Amino acid sequence: MSLATASRAINGSETRTVGEDLRRRVAESARLLGYAPNANAQAMARGATRTIGVVVHDLTDPYFAAIADGIATAATERKLFLTLATTGNNLAALGDVVTSLDSMRVRAIILVGARWKDPDLQDALMASIDQYVGRGGRVVALGMDFPGVDCVQVANEAGATALAEELVALGYRRPLVLTGPERHSTAASRATAFTHRMKQLGHPVPDANQITSDFTRAGGTVGMRLAIEGGLTYDVIVAMNDVMALGALNEATRSGISIPADAGLTGFGDISTLVDVTPGLTTVRVPSGQLARLGLDLALSGPGDGTGSITVGVTPVLRDSTPALRDSAPASR
Amino acid sequence: MSLATASRAINGSETRTVGEDLRRRVAESARLLGYAPNANAQAMARGATRTIGVVVHDLTDPYFAAIADGIATAATERKLFLTLATTGNNLAALGDVVTSLDSMRVRAIILVGARWKDPDLQDALMASIDQYVGRGGRVVALGMDFPGVDCVQVANEAGATALAEELVALGYRRPLVLTGPERHSTAASRATAFTHRMKQLGHPVPDANQITSDFTRAGGTVGMRLAIEGGLTYDVIVAMNDVMALGALNEATRSGISIPADAGLTGFGDISTLVDVTPGLTTVRVPSGQLARLGLDLALSGPGDGTGSITVGVTPVLRDSTPALRDSAPASR
Repeated sequence: MSLATASRAINGSETRTVGEDLRRRVAESARLLGYAPNANAQAMARGATRTIGVVVHDLTDPYFAAIADGIATAATERKLFLTLATTGNNLAALGDVVTSLDSMRVRAIILVGARWKDPDLQDALMASIDQYVGRGGRVVALGMDFPGVDCVQVANEAGATALAEELVALGYRRPLVLTGPERHSTAASRATAFTHRMKQLGHPVPDANQITSDFTRAGGTVGMRLAIEGGLTYDVIVAMNDVMALGALNEATRSGISIPADAGLTGFGDISTLVDVTPGLTTVRVPSGQLARLGLDLALSGPGDGTGSITVGVTPVLRDSTPALRDSAPASR
Repeated sequence: MSLATASRAINGSETRTVGEDLRRRVAESARLLGYAPNANAQAMARGATRTIGVVVHDLTDPYFAAIADGIATAATERKLFLTLATTGNNLAALGDVVTSLDSMRVRAIILVGARWKDPDLQDALMASIDQYVGRGGRVVALGMDFPGVDCVQVANEAGATALAEELVALGYRRPLVLTGPERHSTAASRATAFTHRMKQLGHPVPDANQITSDFTRAGGTVGMRLAIEGGLTYDVIVAMNDVMALGALNEATRSGISIPADAGLTGFGDISTLVDVTPGLTTVRVPSGQLARLGLDLALSGPGDGTGSITVGVTPVLRDSTPALRDSAPASR
């Protein structure tokens, strides 16, 4: 057996393969000799490691956890590893995180989450990305729109538009929209499309009924509290993601507002933990597993220049939190 | 400025520090010149990278996601990265995963989750661990007991014992125990301690009321279904983790059994998503953030030979799913 064959047997090779039996014999001999491949030396030689850098904001949000799990599962199938960086919503750190992953020569970087409309943060991040890409790295943005970078986008506008149509068909006329932060691109695109479609359908959402707060469960709680203190009138609460809807549900229930008897409620995302929430939450399903798999595919073999972008479709899922109203007159609180 | 100073400024150094101002100036110059540190070359020189390998079974279980998030946060504070491997509960893969992380020269490996009482799997895993440790690697087991390895353990027995005492004080006499798999060390230690204490308190749990199923939400659903089909008698359902309890809650509700009117229900873990579950679930709180932080500390600076093991205390948290019973006679279904 040649040295090259043994090396391929131990380290694997992307261009040539060796038989499984031979691979096992070589691996066994290597183990007996205490030999183990040094992935860093291999990375030096190849210029890239077998790791994929993944940047997420917060794993305690089930939406991000599901995407990270999906990428990890798909990576394992390809014998790749996932180096995970959480930013804890500290967006200023994003550029530094990309630079660090660059220094580790990860094969590709997948940025998961939302883009913020902040030119300074954007410039710092783009500088880090440019440097990494200039050295042959690949970057994919997942769940957000990012100029010059291959993206797997979520059809947020189409989903929010379809949700507006479903709610109007059920008899809802006067939504309270928990819009999320104004500069948060995902939240903003959903909120804008939703209110736009409501207006087209003859039910414009008053400015007072559009409340800005964080894109988190706590943000949903705060937004709902502001609505209650403001004495607003609404027949359905429309939150820009599921955890915001859950925060609003909790705050509404604490304040004696019964969902859905007093008002309907909707989220966006269809996180897996909704299965244990009562009443069942109407939402817009984002296929996080598919999103993760497409993201990894694009990271490994996309054009890498933004021309490979894909948009994943989403669908409203109607559950108990938005029953059909008996009459179409707006409810009032 | 000396070359060594510049190198320290760019790459950081664990023994000597340079001023922040100088570090920034050097980094700026390096950036302009297109220079970026190669972490793999550094790893070759140092023999270890700035990454920590973390092995979890399933990020879609909020308990594991919270621990991974806690490790990632603590790692980021120390400018370390986290290389994540999920096994998807494929325990046979554990040894291979350790070997791969070894080849990447991760600084330490944290194994999160449960030990299975399977001698073959155990031997394969120990062989991989021994090889890694023999090269100076460090392994920490988190949430499980592992001979010869530093562990951060959860006081499962004490927690299950305290839970039994609380339930008896509330008037419960006849639990249905969803034990989890027999060979799952965490599940088994909780179930054994719980039934042992019930017996001591004069309320032994009949064998028929101890049901074996998976340590997952689906396992809770299946266990509950078996109990319903078996026509068992019980006044409280005791699941070995929270997601099992949520599966049981769903199955009970679907079958017309009202929790807690017809039977109490308890979990173990206190995952964050419980805040959105009705009725509030009585459980045993495992401080996942503290567990994660201690695990990383031990991985970086523990003795590394099993003598550094720590046990984290847990506390029952009583909520609406286990109201005090008006009389102490066992309810019957």
